[in-house]
Amino acid sequence: MKRLAILGATGSIGRSALSVVDAHPERLQVVGLAAGDNAELLAEQARRYAPRVVGLATSQAADRFRSSYPMFAGAVGAGAEGLLAVATAAEADIVLCASSGTAALEAVLAAIEGGKTIAIANKEVLVMAGALVTAAAERRGVAVLPVDSEHNAIHQCLHGRGAHEVRRLVLTASGGPFRHLSRGELEQVRPEAALQHPTWRMGRKITIDSATLMNKGLEVIEARWLFGVEADGIDVVIHPQSIVHSMVELTDGSVIAQLGVTDMRLPIQYACSYPDRWDGALPRLDLVQAGRLEFQAPDLDRFPCLRLAYRALREGGTCPVVLNAANEVAVAAFLDGRLGFTMIPAMIERVMNDHRSEPVSSVDVVRRVDTWARGRATGLTGELELR
Amino acid sequence: MKRLAILGATGSIGRSALSVVDAHPERLQVVGLAAGDNAELLAEQARRYAPRVVGLATSQAADRFRSSYPMFAGAVGAGAEGLLAVATAAEADIVLCASSGTAALEAVLAAIEGGKTIAIANKEVLVMAGALVTAAAERRGVAVLPVDSEHNAIHQCLHGRGAHEVRRLVLTASGGPFRHLSRGELEQVRPEAALQHPTWRMGRKITIDSATLMNKGLEVIEARWLFGVEADGIDVVIHPQSIVHSMVELTDGSVIAQLGVTDMRLPIQYACSYPDRWDGALPRLDLVQAGRLEFQAPDLDRFPCLRLAYRALREGGTCPVVLNAANEVAVAAFLDGRLGFTMIPAMIERVMNDHRSEPVSSVDVVRRVDTWARGRATGLTGELELR
Repeated sequence: MKRLAILGATGSIGRSALSVVDAHPERLQVVGLAAGDNAELLAEQARRYAPRVVGLATSQAADRFRSSYPMFAGAVGAGAEGLLAVATAAEADIVLCASSGTAALEAVLAAIEGGKTIAIANKEVLVMAGALVTAAAERRGVAVLPVDSEHNAIHQCLHGRGAHEVRRLVLTASGGPFRHLSRGELEQVRPEAALQHPTWRMGRKITIDSATLMNKGLEVIEARWLFGVEADGIDVVIHPQSIVHSMVELTDGSVIAQLGVTDMRLPIQYACSYPDRWDGALPRLDLVQAGRLEFQAPDLDRFPCLRLAYRALREGGTCPVVLNAANEVAVAAFLDGRLGFTMIPAMIERVMNDHRSEPVSSVDVVRRVDTWARGRATGLTGELELR
Repeated sequence: MKRLAILGATGSIGRSALSVVDAHPERLQVVGLAAGDNAELLAEQARRYAPRVVGLATSQAADRFRSSYPMFAGAVGAGAEGLLAVATAAEADIVLCASSGTAALEAVLAAIEGGKTIAIANKEVLVMAGALVTAAAERRGVAVLPVDSEHNAIHQCLHGRGAHEVRRLVLTASGGPFRHLSRGELEQVRPEAALQHPTWRMGRKITIDSATLMNKGLEVIEARWLFGVEADGIDVVIHPQSIVHSMVELTDGSVIAQLGVTDMRLPIQYACSYPDRWDGALPRLDLVQAGRLEFQAPDLDRFPCLRLAYRALREGGTCPVVLNAANEVAVAAFLDGRLGFTMIPAMIERVMNDHRSEPVSSVDVVRRVDTWARGRATGLTGELELR
């Protein structure tokens, strides 16, 4: 029996994780659940899974949780402390991190210090502070297992192979809904169109990141930290069907790929079962029905976000913090109709140009640079929307 | 330094193996070379690689070898004994078996008794006597490594995974040049057309086996012995591009695939390097250039050879010996213009129907059934060509 704490329990990943628990009640037990503002759903989950501790983003949400479930026998925390209490729950073996922001970073670091296995579904934690997280995990001898479909695939492809056997990692990207559009057409893209993702159903922000290829850029940075491979050893290939989840090219030229249906329960279950593998009721891949898998090179001229992510990774230090923060502000402005689609990378590049990278030596550095970049990006939104 | 003996040195696989040796002179040394009738090429190879022992199929060929290379310092053997001498060369660590027939089976069994690692590129050995070979290998604690591209792929996909993690093996098949033909069109196929294989350059017999899908059927039987998976756990999918070399579906629904260029040096090198992996000058796979991978279900009505192979595997015992022998006779008759393309499976089925399977308890049993099936098939050729 493995005991699981979930940060971000009411989101898409969190709910998928709970359905994995449903499929394996004899193997997984929920001991902690943290959410943002959705106190009502968290209360429902708490009734069903009886965690020892829950956390919510604000004290108001915590109050609403208590009103929804007055008989809850466990501890109820709020804010960053509530998240920390769930991440360090004494009973937890695995902490699944699917919540966002710098609070999640601190929670993950605390969970690592507590010796928990980390199942990481949040890109920001590694993008912002991969150096801190991997150093802490190494020091404590703790595994950081990827839940992102692509990194999970690479983890499976690398299984049992040494770093000296690996020539490069190849992340697949759906290419988003606009992979066929010209630069001129991209300028006209509206938020409603961008929110239609071809293969994965996800939140609004990640759907836009998928359309700009920034999502893939963040994954390149994440891969660098998860697998210890530098930027030159990480490639991206467009694969619209999203069936090949990612690949590894080995030193002899052989390529190992992981394929599957597009269902987040697969990588979540893998991270929970690892190093074992469980059967289960997950849908099977039917390649004959899929019929055809296509591969194209990404176009960095039409999708400069991917190029910017490589630049941030190569510049290193706090540069990815700036990339991530500026992107969040730009995407929010785009979704609000205040910024054109092709202005997203333009704004990120401006903020990156204004930043002088420094080593990621502490969470405080990350927080300071993150705040600076958000401020700078917000300021630029006013300028850029005038163009 | 690993020391290598090659059975079938002058054939396509043997020559590829020597080019792997050329690429890794500090890692591989040739200590034995056996060939059939091509004494002149074997002499050339012996000059270059200085093996301790060579073997040729006949004493006439051995004499021609001595004439071609009178100064050869090693031992020269002929016939089954010559093959055995190479297979059991005291210095050899690895015996690559790329020669055919029951003589190869005895040589492989002798090499296993001698504690050699077996790199197996000959389908017949496992199709005819998988039970004998795997039992002997297990008893002596010897590895039998697959060189066939498909099985080599599965070996790489399984790497480090336990049998309880595996749901099924999926062998890919190019489908041959006639995968689009109707049954009526297949009846009209001439040997010249059948000898044009879309992706792999191979010998005549295996090219016809590829066009009938018997090659894939033999591989299904081979896979059963190499990986200990029963017929129900081995599937075949048509993949005309031959880039995905094969796949493994794991218990959680995840699929691991091995991809690569169609170059036999890749699996040969892997078998030589295993459990290590060497870099080298092998061509790299460019998926973007490949562009598209397609998958279709095999049609067992139009290509009954695959169905017959599954039947032989399920009936077990000596039934695959009959399948293999009758197929060889039928293919030879087809290549001679004495048998129609669609009569190949018809003849094999007739011979299988006439056979009562018995356990493969010794090489003698294999030899006796093999001889019987060839005789029966030859007799039928006269009848069937009249239809």
